[in-house]
Amino acid sequence: MDKTDKIGQEIEDNGFDGFLLQGNNSSTDLYYLTSFEAPDSFTYLRAQGKDIILVSPLEKGRADEEAEVDEVVSTSRYKKGDNREDQDAKRDILKQFLEDYGVKKLEVLEDFPLGTAEKIRSKGIEIGTVENKVIEARKIKSKQEVEYLRESQKATERAMEKAKSMIEKSDVKVGKLYYEGEVLSSEKVKREIKIFLLDQGYQLPEETIVACGRNSAKPHDTGEGVLEAGEPIIVDIFPRSGEKYFGDMTRTFVKGGAPEELKKMKQAVLEAQEEAFKLLKQGPTVKASEVHGKVCEVLEEHGYRTLRSDPDTDSGFIHSTGHGVGLDLHEAPRIGDKNEDLEPGMVVTLEPGLYIPDIGGIRLEDMILITEDGYENFNEMSKEMRIT
Amino acid sequence: MDKTDKIGQEIEDNGFDGFLLQGNNSSTDLYYLTSFEAPDSFTYLRAQGKDIILVSPLEKGRADEEAEVDEVVSTSRYKKGDNREDQDAKRDILKQFLEDYGVKKLEVLEDFPLGTAEKIRSKGIEIGTVENKVIEARKIKSKQEVEYLRESQKATERAMEKAKSMIEKSDVKVGKLYYEGEVLSSEKVKREIKIFLLDQGYQLPEETIVACGRNSAKPHDTGEGVLEAGEPIIVDIFPRSGEKYFGDMTRTFVKGGAPEELKKMKQAVLEAQEEAFKLLKQGPTVKASEVHGKVCEVLEEHGYRTLRSDPDTDSGFIHSTGHGVGLDLHEAPRIGDKNEDLEPGMVVTLEPGLYIPDIGGIRLEDMILITEDGYENFNEMSKEMRIT
Repeated sequence: MDKTDKIGQEIEDNGFDGFLLQGNNSSTDLYYLTSFEAPDSFTYLRAQGKDIILVSPLEKGRADEEAEVDEVVSTSRYKKGDNREDQDAKRDILKQFLEDYGVKKLEVLEDFPLGTAEKIRSKGIEIGTVENKVIEARKIKSKQEVEYLRESQKATERAMEKAKSMIEKSDVKVGKLYYEGEVLSSEKVKREIKIFLLDQGYQLPEETIVACGRNSAKPHDTGEGVLEAGEPIIVDIFPRSGEKYFGDMTRTFVKGGAPEELKKMKQAVLEAQEEAFKLLKQGPTVKASEVHGKVCEVLEEHGYRTLRSDPDTDSGFIHSTGHGVGLDLHEAPRIGDKNEDLEPGMVVTLEPGLYIPDIGGIRLEDMILITEDGYENFNEMSKEMRIT
Repeated sequence: MDKTDKIGQEIEDNGFDGFLLQGNNSSTDLYYLTSFEAPDSFTYLRAQGKDIILVSPLEKGRADEEAEVDEVVSTSRYKKGDNREDQDAKRDILKQFLEDYGVKKLEVLEDFPLGTAEKIRSKGIEIGTVENKVIEARKIKSKQEVEYLRESQKATERAMEKAKSMIEKSDVKVGKLYYEGEVLSSEKVKREIKIFLLDQGYQLPEETIVACGRNSAKPHDTGEGVLEAGEPIIVDIFPRSGEKYFGDMTRTFVKGGAPEELKKMKQAVLEAQEEAFKLLKQGPTVKASEVHGKVCEVLEEHGYRTLRSDPDTDSGFIHSTGHGVGLDLHEAPRIGDKNEDLEPGMVVTLEPGLYIPDIGGIRLEDMILITEDGYENFNEMSKEMRIT
């Protein structure tokens, strides 16, 4: 039984006769179900035991070749021309399409557009929402997906080694880093990382982080300007492979001597991650919230604030411990304060961090596969912070 | 009156007391209104004459600095910890947030998530949908936006010159292109384009097209493999600048002698574009559908099919004539069969093309600004196809 057969079964069990999903190439759920991507929105329908997609005439040829579905229908079956921008025409087409496949009671996800739902309802088709079952299905990776993710993380690690080596080979003059005779900036390191990954066939749809000093204290600050000695440099790389699976990895480096406070932060973060790994070694009976709780506990013991000890803090550990990775950089499950199961086949990050506005940040992030007897870490690179 | 004041006025005129938009960094509407981007979903509310955003604690510090709004509220005001993945918690927070700003009758866009709408309604807040007024506002670019788009297109043109020069400098051996002694592939040209644009501070969030031969007959095929002489090579480049505005430009090249049929296609496409430009010179009384109609007319006169002469065709002119460009690669207005106004301040592409499955494709694309007395073409590069 493949992934869409399961969804087909659930539709019937829930008393519906169709399940519909719309989106463009920003919808990874749609790609997961159809193996097809398009810049303009298209429609997936599961009905009458079949997977059907409805695409613009422009995409018909490519969809016939690439989409892993039973039928590809062009919107030109229902209306002349290219209707990608005409909302009313699109809804009429959708209604006729649903009629063609005998759909009278349609199941959609909760993020289905309200306006479209109201128009379809006004045409006599019933609509009910369901929690995102595709997100649910995507949590457990197939062997093929695990292989793609492992490869992506290996490439990410090689890119990280590149970044480290640039910092390593730099000289320090008046507190600033110089690489091959020129000032070394966040931008220059990011460029090397990007070109390296580009050459391996990776895309970097989101910004790479090379954040130094105070920038590193803001977890999503991507960094800019000259890199400085004695300051934390957070490098967080998350490229997407040709197969569309993300890598995601973080290390923190300090060139030259690190201030005492940074060393303490690093030690706390490292311990928090190690304790999380120990817990995971117990196997998949451990809950996500226990892993996150353990990380908070260790960091709090070291005297740092966390969101559970102080929900308003902008200092200390101010994010969750990790997240699933796949076709999306962030996907289910989240390793946070929710009581989620960790099941064999899930691929998640473990990324404790500490952020002190006037000092900077430390983050260490590995990607792991949850297995029957614990986990497999896709990363091998050392977590040494100090680079001389 | 700035862009959000206008929206605020419309909310009142429509009898609502708040307007809400949610999204992450894939929502350019949200960026347009707030000048803020985040990888996880956040909320924009216009109420009580103010622009307010609701963000996770993780984003609070960065939002305080970067967002151009009146207030930044952290979700930690309502609930402990990081609730990014907990749907129920998110809806409770949203309800409390709306209450804090006195919202009882909420206006949302038509793509607002059905599930969230139903939950909010069940808590006693009225919800009404409105056509996407942000899309509407974004059609007319500010002077600053025009400047960003012109710059992006200039950089895109320089990248196109790079690609052309690689093809130009290639030798032909047994029908294949060789560049600097090695076989020249689609991938290699794409790499050069990407690195060139990366170095200018551009992102390439979507795939660059370098499609040769039969691949070029599918408008969204990104191309692969060795480039061949006597075959059309469609190069379509659409990078996004640091200011987040897209360039978008296409040229078609043929190395060596081109077959007669290709020459005819090229001539037809060129004429279609020239006729469209002539029409636009009449100034902004011309409708988008007239421009598209003219392009179809010229191509049909040359004996090719179009979607208006044959809605089912996968051969001939199988897309619309152009589209608005801005924070999105494709945005309103569309230059298609809809009777849309073309107003001064709009920035659109003009990209007629012809695609014949067994032969290949030809497309020429410029980006223009609609002005009071016609248009300004951001492109200068020649449309010569043949490269010797």
